Amino acid sequence: MRFTIDKEQFLKALTYAGHAIAPKNPYAMLANFKITLSEKGLEVLGSNSEITIRSIVPYMLKDREVIRQGIPGSILINARVLSEVVRKMEGGELSLDVIDNAIAKVDDGRSSFRLNCANAEEYPDIDLEPDGVTFDMPCAAMAGLVEQSAFAASTKEQRPILTALNLEAADGILTATATDSARLARKTVAIESEVKFRVNIPARVAIDVSKLFEGASTVEITVSEKKGVLFRFGQTVVSTRVIPGDYPQTKSIIPQTFNYVLDVNARELLNAMDRVSILSSDKESVVRLSMTEDRVELTVRSDANGSAVEALQTFQFTGERLDVSFNSAFVVDAVKALKSEDVSVCFLAEMKPFVVKNKQDDSVVELITPMRTY
Amino acid sequence: MRFTIDKEQFLKALTYAGHAIAPKNPYAMLANFKITLSEKGLEVLGSNSEITIRSIVPYMLKDREVIRQGIPGSILINARVLSEVVRKMEGGELSLDVIDNAIAKVDDGRSSFRLNCANAEEYPDIDLEPDGVTFDMPCAAMAGLVEQSAFAASTKEQRPILTALNLEAADGILTATATDSARLARKTVAIESEVKFRVNIPARVAIDVSKLFEGASTVEITVSEKKGVLFRFGQTVVSTRVIPGDYPQTKSIIPQTFNYVLDVNARELLNAMDRVSILSSDKESVVRLSMTEDRVELTVRSDANGSAVEALQTFQFTGERLDVSFNSAFVVDAVKALKSEDVSVCFLAEMKPFVVKNKQDDSVVELITPMRTY
Repeated sequence: MRFTIDKEQFLKALTYAGHAIAPKNPYAMLANFKITLSEKGLEVLGSNSEITIRSIVPYMLKDREVIRQGIPGSILINARVLSEVVRKMEGGELSLDVIDNAIAKVDDGRSSFRLNCANAEEYPDIDLEPDGVTFDMPCAAMAGLVEQSAFAASTKEQRPILTALNLEAADGILTATATDSARLARKTVAIESEVKFRVNIPARVAIDVSKLFEGASTVEITVSEKKGVLFRFGQTVVSTRVIPGDYPQTKSIIPQTFNYVLDVNARELLNAMDRVSILSSDKESVVRLSMTEDRVELTVRSDANGSAVEALQTFQFTGERLDVSFNSAFVVDAVKALKSEDVSVCFLAEMKPFVVKNKQDDSVVELITPMRTY
Repeated sequence: MRFTIDKEQFLKALTYAGHAIAPKNPYAMLANFKITLSEKGLEVLGSNSEITIRSIVPYMLKDREVIRQGIPGSILINARVLSEVVRKMEGGELSLDVIDNAIAKVDDGRSSFRLNCANAEEYPDIDLEPDGVTFDMPCAAMAGLVEQSAFAASTKEQRPILTALNLEAADGILTATATDSARLARKTVAIESEVKFRVNIPARVAIDVSKLFEGASTVEITVSEKKGVLFRFGQTVVSTRVIPGDYPQTKSIIPQTFNYVLDVNARELLNAMDRVSILSSDKESVVRLSMTEDRVELTVRSDANGSAVEALQTFQFTGERLDVSFNSAFVVDAVKALKSEDVSVCFLAEMKPFVVKNKQDDSVVELITPMRTY
């Protein structure tokens, strides 16, 4: 196996596939990229237990030759080392020659690296062929869907199903839901397809994938309960595992009518929360929101540091006097995810879950459970 | 005690004094700032076992009133909390009121913090009055002196004297020396004073202090073997402890004549070292430099990763063939400290300490001990 390749295109493929390389992997072979030159081009494959990414460098890009003097083959090379070597080389083109299936000589005429490598047959078999229900949608819509929902998933492994982003499609609507049981985020988007499925993928993988779309306009998504979910965009294919188990029924827990509504400026609320949270302990910042028609206050009390009170300047509150305490990080995440200048916080009662939403956009709902305090 | 103060000026003083606040301090009182309002202005004092910093906000700055409605007094307030509160407040002016020596009310009309505080008498006595030989010099010259020498000090506490920056003044010359016993850096600068002293201060403190000079043009330095070294500049006074013990005699170990000289472009050498070091193990990157009149090569070998060879493009080498191995970080630090486009690496023999220097500037010397390899 050998080839001469445009450095930037090679580096781009290594960087994409590198998102699947875990810093520490129990299976040593997965510290490597599998690099394969075939008639399709140069394929760079990286994988860990949750996600596999394959990125292809084609022989020609528009009218430009990107790979030349190629002899087909396949080899495993340490992913971190190869990425660093290619990134730091100064030439615009470099060659990679595999000697005796043991050494990959990487050379740009100035620098010459002889990298230890391993036989491609030692790499696990990974199937990236689409198999299941398939639809496509704009990358921007998929990225937005993930950004406004996945953050609310749990990061603790005690209940694995809560680390998932739940994706459901029916009647031309794709719904993404994430919850860690103390909060929930849901976003819906219309799709031009009548596919019907329910699937749970790791929420952090969904976030990683949505950041790889850059440049691509459309993503093709294939869902299979058995083989996982496949995202195909540009020259890249990403496969993620499915989290087994039934996702909690969440539709009925979102209240539809409210007794109290607070309309505020998002930026002002975030700044005020940021200030009062200075006094919180490191773990969790509990903020108390006290509302009347005339005054809305945020309060934090800390035995160690003292107390803080912040009065909002711009607000409209409808309802009787209400005091609600909550984890400030949950409200901050929810307000940020709405991406709206103004937000509404809607309550049923002091100890009932409340909703943070954008009155102009009912495709997003953020639900938060209050905390008992004082 | 109370005062109303310009937010930016208060924050600047808190930020300066905050450089002396250690993240974890065995003596709990030193997690606080000592804040004192007197006829001199508002004094913010921070301290740890190595360094004390006092910064003063004056009542008037040019023709502008910076502090008003002041009632003198002194109090201790948690440094991290007070800095964060003042940094995040939105008003241009804020007031601080001490209630019953127990609560400091910090208010800008919008946010209101009640911070726990402690009696000023619980703070240790710290003497910042100048006492010893005194001279002054431009801040830029002092910062340059530190930058080109202090990095070579040891960061390990086994031999405390090697963590010092040694400062010696005699005959109108100030010399700074740092060594961790495997490398040494020395810088000299002329001063307009006939003071004579030898003193050792913590090298990392010297680096911190030299970064605080911004804006100030002259620093007044007072050296006392007993009370430490005092740096006075702008509205700030910094006192550092002295490291006791005799500094190693280093003058005689710097060779003056050489059998081999390699002239190279600093940028090209740094880039090449950066590339070949990719293959090194995490701890220490050993690079071998092989020189003849026709070819200069850097080589790294790693059992785990393979090997790298890099040929320099621009160089001039005088002498017989020579191979020298060294810790690449030492050469990188030395080349960077020279701040010169071209550098000369001068050798006596394969296993003798070698010198990295700038032919146009003999005020800096960087000495490095080679390593045995292969």
